[in-house]
Amino acid sequence: MTTHRLGVGVLGLGYWGPNLAKNVATSKECRLTGLCDRDAARLEHVAAEYPGVRQTRDVDDLLRDPAVEAVAIATPVDSHYGLARTCLEAGRHVLIEKPMTRSAAEAESLIELAERKGLTLMVDHTFNYTGAVTKLKEIMATGSLGDILYWDSVRVNLGLFQHDVNVVWDLAPHDLSIMDYVLDVKPTSVQATGVAHYSDGLENIAYITLRFTGGTIAHFHVNWLAPVKIRTTLIGGTKKMIVFDDMETVEKLKVYDKGVNVVKEREGIYYTLVQYRMGDMFAPHIQNVEALSREVAHFARVVRGEDRPISGGDAGLRVVRILEAAERSMREGGKEIRL
Amino acid sequence: MTTHRLGVGVLGLGYWGPNLAKNVATSKECRLTGLCDRDAARLEHVAAEYPGVRQTRDVDDLLRDPAVEAVAIATPVDSHYGLARTCLEAGRHVLIEKPMTRSAAEAESLIELAERKGLTLMVDHTFNYTGAVTKLKEIMATGSLGDILYWDSVRVNLGLFQHDVNVVWDLAPHDLSIMDYVLDVKPTSVQATGVAHYSDGLENIAYITLRFTGGTIAHFHVNWLAPVKIRTTLIGGTKKMIVFDDMETVEKLKVYDKGVNVVKEREGIYYTLVQYRMGDMFAPHIQNVEALSREVAHFARVVRGEDRPISGGDAGLRVVRILEAAERSMREGGKEIRL
Amino acid sequence: MTTHRLGVGVLGLGYWGPNLAKNVATSKECRLTGLCDRDAARLEHVAAEYPGVRQTRDVDDLLRDPAVEAVAIATPVDSHYGLARTCLEAGRHVLIEKPMTRSAAEAESLIELAERKGLTLMVDHTFNYTGAVTKLKEIMATGSLGDILYWDSVRVNLGLFQHDVNVVWDLAPHDLSIMDYVLDVKPTSVQATGVAHYSDGLENIAYITLRFTGGTIAHFHVNWLAPVKIRTTLIGGTKKMIVFDDMETVEKLKVYDKGVNVVKEREGIYYTLVQYRMGDMFAPHIQNVEALSREVAHFARVVRGEDRPISGGDAGLRVVRILEAAERSMREGGKEIRL
Amino acid sequence: MTTHRLGVGVLGLGYWGPNLAKNVATSKECRLTGLCDRDAARLEHVAAEYPGVRQTRDVDDLLRDPAVEAVAIATPVDSHYGLARTCLEAGRHVLIEKPMTRSAAEAESLIELAERKGLTLMVDHTFNYTGAVTKLKEIMATGSLGDILYWDSVRVNLGLFQHDVNVVWDLAPHDLSIMDYVLDVKPTSVQATGVAHYSDGLENIAYITLRFTGGTIAHFHVNWLAPVKIRTTLIGGTKKMIVFDDMETVEKLKVYDKGVNVVKEREGIYYTLVQYRMGDMFAPHIQNVEALSREVAHFARVVRGEDRPISGGDAGLRVVRILEAAERSMREGGKEIRL
Repeated sequence: MTTHRLGVGVLGLGYWGPNLAKNVATSKECRLTGLCDRDAARLEHVAAEYPGVRQTRDVDDLLRDPAVEAVAIATPVDSHYGLARTCLEAGRHVLIEKPMTRSAAEAESLIELAERKGLTLMVDHTFNYTGAVTKLKEIMATGSLGDILYWDSVRVNLGLFQHDVNVVWDLAPHDLSIMDYVLDVKPTSVQATGVAHYSDGLENIAYITLRFTGGTIAHFHVNWLAPVKIRTTLIGGTKKMIVFDDMETVEKLKVYDKGVNVVKEREGIYYTLVQYRMGDMFAPHIQNVEALSREVAHFARVVRGEDRPISGGDAGLRVVRILEAAERSMREGGKEIRL
Repeated sequence: MTTHRLGVGVLGLGYWGPNLAKNVATSKECRLTGLCDRDAARLEHVAAEYPGVRQTRDVDDLLRDPAVEAVAIATPVDSHYGLARTCLEAGRHVLIEKPMTRSAAEAESLIELAERKGLTLMVDHTFNYTGAVTKLKEIMATGSLGDILYWDSVRVNLGLFQHDVNVVWDLAPHDLSIMDYVLDVKPTSVQATGVAHYSDGLENIAYITLRFTGGTIAHFHVNWLAPVKIRTTLIGGTKKMIVFDDMETVEKLKVYDKGVNVVKEREGIYYTLVQYRMGDMFAPHIQNVEALSREVAHFARVVRGEDRPISGGDAGLRVVRILEAAERSMREGGKEIRL
Repeated sequence: MTTHRLGVGVLGLGYWGPNLAKNVATSKECRLTGLCDRDAARLEHVAAEYPGVRQTRDVDDLLRDPAVEAVAIATPVDSHYGLARTCLEAGRHVLIEKPMTRSAAEAESLIELAERKGLTLMVDHTFNYTGAVTKLKEIMATGSLGDILYWDSVRVNLGLFQHDVNVVWDLAPHDLSIMDYVLDVKPTSVQATGVAHYSDGLENIAYITLRFTGGTIAHFHVNWLAPVKIRTTLIGGTKKMIVFDDMETVEKLKVYDKGVNVVKEREGIYYTLVQYRMGDMFAPHIQNVEALSREVAHFARVVRGEDRPISGGDAGLRVVRILEAAERSMREGGKEIRL
Repeated sequence: MTTHRLGVGVLGLGYWGPNLAKNVATSKECRLTGLCDRDAARLEHVAAEYPGVRQTRDVDDLLRDPAVEAVAIATPVDSHYGLARTCLEAGRHVLIEKPMTRSAAEAESLIELAERKGLTLMVDHTFNYTGAVTKLKEIMATGSLGDILYWDSVRVNLGLFQHDVNVVWDLAPHDLSIMDYVLDVKPTSVQATGVAHYSDGLENIAYITLRFTGGTIAHFHVNWLAPVKIRTTLIGGTKKMIVFDDMETVEKLKVYDKGVNVVKEREGIYYTLVQYRMGDMFAPHIQNVEALSREVAHFARVVRGEDRPISGGDAGLRVVRILEAAERSMREGGKEIRL
């Protein structure tokens, strides 16, 4: 018996869509059954590589084809909600490019609709399918770090200024989705500050702080105007600590057996003595996998009921909630926004 | 004619005081004329290296000696104000370890007193005497970076937990004093968040954001609980950008001829076009100087009226104002505090 | 008038051939007019991407097609000579994968044949078409380094053990061809040592030393068994020095204004005083170009007489001469072999 | 009962001598009982820091003092033999700066003399007392690397040109002594090439190759004229591999669980199949110890018969034998010299 290969149409062929198309086309779990973009030239350019695959500038036309069982949406974020709704209503499974939607209300509405229709709704949190994040999840899941004290991420470079979203909506979803995936605890509040130096009010630098019950703090620095590319996350636990440096070619994850031991001592008065623990460092071997390829295959297996989603609509919603709160905090002078 | 060598007494012989003593003793501009610490064992231990230098456990005793023309104070920060006041009232020039005082009011009071008495009051912002910061100041002073868009600093490591101050008062003075020295514009507001995971309420991780008129933003990450030592400052200008990595042995400063050009264009509607500029990188040769030795000699020259202070009481006050506001912001849930 | 696009057939579709095919197919200066490999499965697999392009398992068949005006040969090195000869005799221009041939005699014979036939013969020294080496050549050509004292290259990693050639023939052509391209002086002798730890006599580690008139020395370390990937070349001149680190993502070339000044002084007896010169470092911006794409276009322009070859048969021959001498030196216990 | 502290005189107060003096003076196992240098100014300058310690410009005078039980010799290498002989003949234990002597014959003669007199003779191979090399020795001693295939070391920088020795005698002793300490097998032959660009015939760049029975190869690159400082040793074993990077502040040793597995297979003919093994990396915590302080204390314990020498005269001799052979090989055009 051969597995049924899921028929996937790709909607939106700008920067990311062609990658999705390529990975769908070469997957053993999927078939590329449709290509759709409003821009005729772009559509033709991409479609030329997939002779025989239906191409159309019209979503409704795409959805008329029963071979399109699922749709991967890679359009600008403002259109995610409307297009995903259309696809779900037409009975199609949906994989949406991150960030999932422009508001939590929209995300909730899509989740509700997918559930009602019995369809799969997933979000393209690509990083969670990389070898590095898969290994990070594995390490975190063992509990060997102890209690998580902080998560600190820096994602900066001389980046493409987006015209529709600020740097928070553009870059932070990467780190927020990774954190959402590997951390068990969920944030309770968001504070953010940012500056828009160019581009009519779209922030190009921002700092986001999350609070969790139990004292964990998370912080994200996103910046489109840095002279060097930095992709570093520090994760501090009571027992071990991790540096995840995505700019490293090979040793992306380093696990440090370092920390402090706290001893309450009495010397005149009681006071807290902090002792250092300096141990070995360990860099686990990371499998070299093509993340998008893994994700596309995983999506097909989720649709077939063989797998539980790594990045389901609920994960997409949690990320959007933080983005929405961060934006509101920035508008209100860095006020702490409860989640 | 030989230059008069300034007679300096060192008050406080804990971690930093012995360094001051050594640099005073070996300076061509100073003489070490007194050593003072309340702890008898510590005093004896340090004094053993300087036979013939007056040693005492009592400040008043130190100040009775006319050979002590100036006092370098390296005691815990809570005692800075009282001791500096005593020294100034006794007619002595004063060099205070950073941070200058525990409050801006205290710093202002010392400045006023020193002025009234016609005495030199300086703060030990050691970094501003290093080869790297001297070169950084030189580059910034040329204006070649254009308008400064942001200053982003990270100073983290598995550090000594202090018992009297939190990580903000411990680590941030380094970066705040460097920024105060090389940036012409001064901040208008402060926001800070932090967490105290150990040690009865002293924050061990903190994030500080400064706002300036004109859209410049500055951000500081200080952390005593990081598995690796990071000392990196990114400075973004409209024309050039700098990475100052103090962990580099040689190439501490890198100047990037990179940035964006903004062009207002019309395509249907007006919109802002951001174009990249990718140019060469340049790492200036940095002189290998002993910062504290330079500082001590500079202090003597300032006392003699031959130099204007690089880190005078006013600089110390500006740093303390920010620290004080940061602390208040942390207590008030990250509220923006006007300076 | 439109430029004639050179019709190129690709011969040998193993590891490198498909890259050549892709770059020929997408070049504005060429057309892919034939694909040839003895292995039917491999041929079919590659040909599937180029519908309409003639495919054949037989060289003679390939050469019967007048649309194949030139042949890019990417077969195992032992077959280079025979196949190139066949192509040239059939009146085709030839681009041969490096190393050009197994012996200098073979290379000389091909050069002579191409000249006699008035055909272009080039060698695929790909590195010389990268942005980094192009910039390196540019810097070296200004003479700003002064006299070249040494060239030291390390190319090691956990690499693919070849079955037909040792590590010298596999890795050294990269560095030898770069050096041949950017250095004006040519070596006069070769010494080499190596060890074959596995694989029936094929060396997996080797060290090669070249001597030049005038005291320049060059040294190459090639190793298939290193735990980390290193690609570093140090070039020392009397005035400046360069570090070319190909593992760097961006700053691949660093030019140091460092060196020594030699002064003959007299102090009792005459002696040589060496003084240090420590200056700035400069990392030129490097264009991000696809080397193979540039090379393929350049090949077409050379065939049309519009360009002089960057990596002609003569360059291929010079590299092969060194490889041949290195191999002989290894066989003779590291004896110095005159070139 | 208190341990007798060994009375040590330091002979030669140039660059290294004062370090020896300081570590002897602060050691719990030694006492500094004498300082000797022919240069009056230098002697006075150093002696000023050790009031009460006998100072003299004459070796015989130094040796007349029974409080000088042992002598640490830090004079130019040419004088090592004569001075060490004088000290041993006067019944003093000796610690000689590396390289031990100018010839193997001299080293053998000193060893024989020390044995006959029942005195301790050690060589100052400082690196073997560092935390990093101590840990390296520990790892190597477990045998976890399998058979050692190669040792590759690079020690280059813009270094001090010596007036009395070439770069081989100046820099290679560091790496040769480390290798001698941690590798069980001993080399059987030496080949070396080098160039003297300045300084009347003293080589400033050199490459040394050692052969061992069993196929192990070792290679050393030493260079006084490099724009950057590199201190990297690669050690390849059949089971694991190590990178020892002494320029790293913390993670100086990295142990890689990487390598190749060789399987003899038959496919038509028999051939060797090499399979990769890519595993985790591990960086052991390295103790932060002052090497010279450890060495001086160890020397005292060896003299008292409580310890066996880590760097005895035999180790010094083995290093000198290689240096001597390397020099001879350079003079004879890179000829392989049997040890």
